[in-house]
Amino acid sequence: MTKEILEIKIGVLGGGQLGKMLCLKAAEWDIKIHILDKINAPASKYCHSFTEGDYTNFEDVFHFGKDKDIITIEIEHVNVEALKALKKKGVQIYPDPEILEMIKDKGLQKQFYAAYKIPTAPFKIYATKAEILLDIEKGEIKYPFIQKSRTDGYDGKGVQYIASNLEHNTLLEGGSIVEKAIAIKKELAVIIVANQQGEIVSYPTVEMVFDHKANLLDYLIAPADISEKIDNKCQRIALKLAHLMQYRGILAVEFFLTKDNTILINEIAPRTHNSGHHTIDACNVSQFEMHLRSILNLPLIIPKLRKSAVMMNLVGENGYEGAAKLQGFETAIAMEEFYMHLYGKENTKPYRKMGHFTILDKNPKKALKKAFIIKELLKIKS
Amino acid sequence: MTKEILEIKIGVLGGGQLGKMLCLKAAEWDIKIHILDKINAPASKYCHSFTEGDYTNFEDVFHFGKDKDIITIEIEHVNVEALKALKKKGVQIYPDPEILEMIKDKGLQKQFYAAYKIPTAPFKIYATKAEILLDIEKGEIKYPFIQKSRTDGYDGKGVQYIASNLEHNTLLEGGSIVEKAIAIKKELAVIIVANQQGEIVSYPTVEMVFDHKANLLDYLIAPADISEKIDNKCQRIALKLAHLMQYRGILAVEFFLTKDNTILINEIAPRTHNSGHHTIDACNVSQFEMHLRSILNLPLIIPKLRKSAVMMNLVGENGYEGAAKLQGFETAIAMEEFYMHLYGKENTKPYRKMGHFTILDKNPKKALKKAFIIKELLKIKS
Repeated sequence: MTKEILEIKIGVLGGGQLGKMLCLKAAEWDIKIHILDKINAPASKYCHSFTEGDYTNFEDVFHFGKDKDIITIEIEHVNVEALKALKKKGVQIYPDPEILEMIKDKGLQKQFYAAYKIPTAPFKIYATKAEILLDIEKGEIKYPFIQKSRTDGYDGKGVQYIASNLEHNTLLEGGSIVEKAIAIKKELAVIIVANQQGEIVSYPTVEMVFDHKANLLDYLIAPADISEKIDNKCQRIALKLAHLMQYRGILAVEFFLTKDNTILINEIAPRTHNSGHHTIDACNVSQFEMHLRSILNLPLIIPKLRKSAVMMNLVGENGYEGAAKLQGFETAIAMEEFYMHLYGKENTKPYRKMGHFTILDKNPKKALKKAFIIKELLKIKS
Repeated sequence: MTKEILEIKIGVLGGGQLGKMLCLKAAEWDIKIHILDKINAPASKYCHSFTEGDYTNFEDVFHFGKDKDIITIEIEHVNVEALKALKKKGVQIYPDPEILEMIKDKGLQKQFYAAYKIPTAPFKIYATKAEILLDIEKGEIKYPFIQKSRTDGYDGKGVQYIASNLEHNTLLEGGSIVEKAIAIKKELAVIIVANQQGEIVSYPTVEMVFDHKANLLDYLIAPADISEKIDNKCQRIALKLAHLMQYRGILAVEFFLTKDNTILINEIAPRTHNSGHHTIDACNVSQFEMHLRSILNLPLIIPKLRKSAVMMNLVGENGYEGAAKLQGFETAIAMEEFYMHLYGKENTKPYRKMGHFTILDKNPKKALKKAFIIKELLKIKS
């Protein structure tokens, strides 16, 4: 890009917490971020300009994008046709709309893994719930299994664990994939960053622990407590995948480490990701800065952890709905190496992602212990 | 304060770079910052609300402050009478208006040091330039000496070094102090933070190197390369001063280390300060977070350096005036542990503070070397 860096207009589809954290980083460099989202989105207070609109709507996205130099996303569920049209007009799009189209459809994503022999759980694609029931009847699907909506999944929604025929009522309608339920030892993730000139780097592998009630990431540990062999395998698969896709931008790759020590790709996200929130406080360079570096085609540096870190999501307390109130902050903030991020969502509801915090400690066990103490203290209520 | 922390309204007089960096920190916690300043001030894009107005004007400050819970400043040159009136109405003011009034007048500041036997350069207060000329004639002022405006100093303005009678034409009119020119080995600074419940902590002492052409801080080294004895002396004087003033909020204390190893207070600033800009990237807690902690009466933690740091100001290149352009960023950003902050001022002029950068390195000499390489690369032109 020959344009003066301070004049480049970056448009972001989505202004939630990821958009907000990107804006805060961009603000340090005086990089201009323009956001498209619904009114009062968390990023709206911190961007260079805010456009009210629907990022799933062709007209809204196309109109928003046409005077921008670069368009990127904080959520996959955007209007890809508009991005294709903008690309034709010469707007740089990260991730590439064709890649985004493939990733946002979990069916196509799985077919890509299969085509390139990237290890993933066995799966089959279905168009309707009825077809799934038929395959169950024929004995071709065995319990327990996982059903994932092809295109509607987000933050734990659109994924069902089906243990027996008693749970058929929860099966999703519409296009989905059915995966064999894998006996999982750990869930892991690697964030990859690639710029236009083909530099590509990765963050240290993290370990993710889920809250299965909410189907949401509860906390992560960085670095993951895994063998070097497993770590290398995750890193190699993530880098290989990014190379195969000729990926440009930032990509989160989520893995299962199975009980028999196999690494399988679970899914990928073509954007900044919850598995990288610790990088703001724990690394020499945050995932948000790396996102900017990648889309501005700036040099990439090797991301490193300063210390061990535990990042925990702050979700809306069960039983509370309405204007958010923060409880326990005054006590938590007295602790050393405690870094809180509150997203600025006015209203809370059970399990809504309202913020996160990161604990740093040379000793990962101590970091985890401290995180659990803070989890008991710090509550989002109404 | 019994009010829910997310509902507290903090008003800040001034929306320059200090206000902006405060907003960016507050955004992470979803703390609401409201700014009063001229239109297009750097902080205007990142605050919860922006009020266009003049912080030196009684009506503007009073009107802005009356619906706020807390008022604080990023510059001393504000209307103190309005702050006193707001204090009477129950608004919390940081720093206290009486203290601010004393500090913003360098004559009163020096008298305070004298009254409490805090070491400072010998001085005399003058009402006019004519009185100074008279004392020169009488032989009561010897060359070289320093003249400082009592109330108009800022960013190197309002301070004159007078070497001989050839420089009388540069003497400032109006109230000023005349100080003996001290043979200085180093300039040092300590930032103090105190909250309402009386907790008080300090940042490690830094060493400041000035650009004498611009009379501006060129760069700082943290920690300062001084003996433990000198360091302790700076820390003790800074803490004693804050105690004597019953200071609440954040206070920067600047020192001279004289050629004969005496520590003298140069001046103080009752706000976040250029001598603390490295704390964003080099410390476990930045001066901006500590400012928030102090005025919100949150617990203070001990500020620590992660590594040695060099912070260098990025000023407008000599010979360029107009819309700012950044040169050399793509090269500089390839370096490890380089952290840039650009303030978002649209127009540059010679020596205008446009940003700063911080270099971290275990080895302070390497950090300094890298900073000078970057200084050659990174230019603000028009």
